[in-house]
Amino acid sequence: MLVNGVHYRTIWRMREGEVALIDQRYLPHAFVVETLTSVESLAEAIRQMHIRGAIALGAAAAYGLELAAFGASDTELPETLRQAAALLKRTRPTAVNIAWAVDTIMAQLQRCEHPEELRIRLRHAVDELVEAEVQRCRRIGVLGAQLLAELAHRKGERLNILTHCNAGWLGCVDYGTALAPVYVAAEQGIPLHVWVSETRPRNQGAALTAWELQQQGIPYTVVADNACGHLLQRGLVDVAIVGADRITRRGDTANKIGTYLKALACRAHAVPFYVAAPTSSFDFTLEDGLAHIPIEERSPEEVHTVSGWHGGQLLTVRITPEGAHAWNPAFDVTPAELITGFITEHGMFSPTALSELATVAAAHA
Amino acid sequence: MLVNGVHYRTIWRMREGEVALIDQRYLPHAFVVETLTSVESLAEAIRQMHIRGAIALGAAAAYGLELAAFGASDTELPETLRQAAALLKRTRPTAVNIAWAVDTIMAQLQRCEHPEELRIRLRHAVDELVEAEVQRCRRIGVLGAQLLAELAHRKGERLNILTHCNAGWLGCVDYGTALAPVYVAAEQGIPLHVWVSETRPRNQGAALTAWELQQQGIPYTVVADNACGHLLQRGLVDVAIVGADRITRRGDTANKIGTYLKALACRAHAVPFYVAAPTSSFDFTLEDGLAHIPIEERSPEEVHTVSGWHGGQLLTVRITPEGAHAWNPAFDVTPAELITGFITEHGMFSPTALSELATVAAAHA
Repeated sequence: MLVNGVHYRTIWRMREGEVALIDQRYLPHAFVVETLTSVESLAEAIRQMHIRGAIALGAAAAYGLELAAFGASDTELPETLRQAAALLKRTRPTAVNIAWAVDTIMAQLQRCEHPEELRIRLRHAVDELVEAEVQRCRRIGVLGAQLLAELAHRKGERLNILTHCNAGWLGCVDYGTALAPVYVAAEQGIPLHVWVSETRPRNQGAALTAWELQQQGIPYTVVADNACGHLLQRGLVDVAIVGADRITRRGDTANKIGTYLKALACRAHAVPFYVAAPTSSFDFTLEDGLAHIPIEERSPEEVHTVSGWHGGQLLTVRITPEGAHAWNPAFDVTPAELITGFITEHGMFSPTALSELATVAAAHA
Repeated sequence: MLVNGVHYRTIWRMREGEVALIDQRYLPHAFVVETLTSVESLAEAIRQMHIRGAIALGAAAAYGLELAAFGASDTELPETLRQAAALLKRTRPTAVNIAWAVDTIMAQLQRCEHPEELRIRLRHAVDELVEAEVQRCRRIGVLGAQLLAELAHRKGERLNILTHCNAGWLGCVDYGTALAPVYVAAEQGIPLHVWVSETRPRNQGAALTAWELQQQGIPYTVVADNACGHLLQRGLVDVAIVGADRITRRGDTANKIGTYLKALACRAHAVPFYVAAPTSSFDFTLEDGLAHIPIEERSPEEVHTVSGWHGGQLLTVRITPEGAHAWNPAFDVTPAELITGFITEHGMFSPTALSELATVAAAHA
């Protein structure tokens, strides 16, 4: 997508052995590109959320394997890749995309005997995986825009869309998941406006989604997470679309903490609640999301403090008393019964029709 | 309540013509007492939230009338008081306590002919109103603690209480509303722990409630507002208690933005949701809170920025992009059907029994 009119992806190969990413800790205040040359530094960038969002994390993990291979001698190569795979899978537990990307690529390398062949095939597998994710997001945009067009047509006036966190192109490689339909619909001239919930504790809505929408010229308004019930109660939301970090086969969806409250409020006011995600975010091995999706607990410091811009630099201010106790679960699980439908690259699926998606996805794998 | 072991109220008369208050903008980082000598500066302190919380606002308005009278000559006195009353009522629209305090006091001055008599009666009326509010809060504490004792007894282990914003003693004159039962129950040795939701955009939970509970030695944990659905879903909350800014005769309750989402989540998980408030927060002239309680919209700057402590001073950092749009409704309305009961100074009332409370309150007026 465009940054000051220039097309960027969130992460890309600069050259052999060097990966670049937009360091999202500085957005929306400064546009910083970070270059990484080792899998260890990439893993740290994932943990510290220089890059985040399920799809972007999958791509980052793929590039991480490539960095590991670049730094390894031919004899070390298989063992280095195995260790890199394990390292990358340990970085963040909730989004299934990291494990999916690592496993998908490693599976393609299994029968490579010659190091040179392995390196070539690895690079090819990374490119293929990343490009396929970009195309899946684009497809989600096109299919989701049809839904928005229909809703806008039925309403007859500007559509108000609620989203949470950042499931835009910054959370993917390009296009986005929840925001992809918004971008495509806006291109098609469908009148729309996006309610952006701040998304404490890390403010991905206020910082990243607001910035993305502003860069693409989409009308939006930031609200405190607390305001979302009020918006729904007052009839100011026509549809909610969020992304996902992991979706079980029955449709339970782990996404950024606070998603569940929004889904409850949508249900209370009969507003449709959609999850937009490519099949790479589905974990068909799990049924019960509440019982089985691991929920990452991040440092309480993210609750104690807020980072923002002051005097031309990024500063962190403390909002709780010294010695205060805080807890920071980073995701929650929205049960399938609160979800109207899943917007995937293979079409729209209700939670009860996800077995069909599993079949389609397996056929495409 | 205690601040470093010394008893304080949130607002008090320093001497004739001088009112002191704890400037809550600096908490929990610094304990600053502000003294005010004019109704204009007091009105500004209310608008800028040096003091906040429905009960504290009522008391502040009462002291404001006294400051206005002190500055006026005998001939100007009636007109000055009328203007001060109007000024104070305009400061913040949602909490009914400001209008209630002003009207209660002005009614008692109606038949005063002599300026000296009026001044004496004014001071007496202010003291009476403030003391009665303190006693009402204390009574809410005692009655609410019986409820907590019962719930703790039934559970047989430590009770987890969820609250929102600050309805502690800082939001009142002393004791608090939602936190008063917690303080009394803790004194009685009932094992409990409080989940404190941060309460963006002004973080009254993270800053004020956490500080209050820490000062009184009550176990608590701060969470992002977004985490409250997750807490309820995981069975980590036994009861929610919040304060109120205005309650209609059928029980619709305006309170800090975000209350409604918590009430919805409590309902979804069959967790009792209580509102603790003295009768001064009830507006028996209104029926439909959604239609008729005015919702204050505060500056979008409160959403764009966060204030906190950095390097020994209060700093404000910006979290949204330059030029971003934000909206900042400061309260929401929780419909009566989501409320288990009201803890008042006259006892516990279900929403369907509020006409009895109106009768009791009228008899005590």
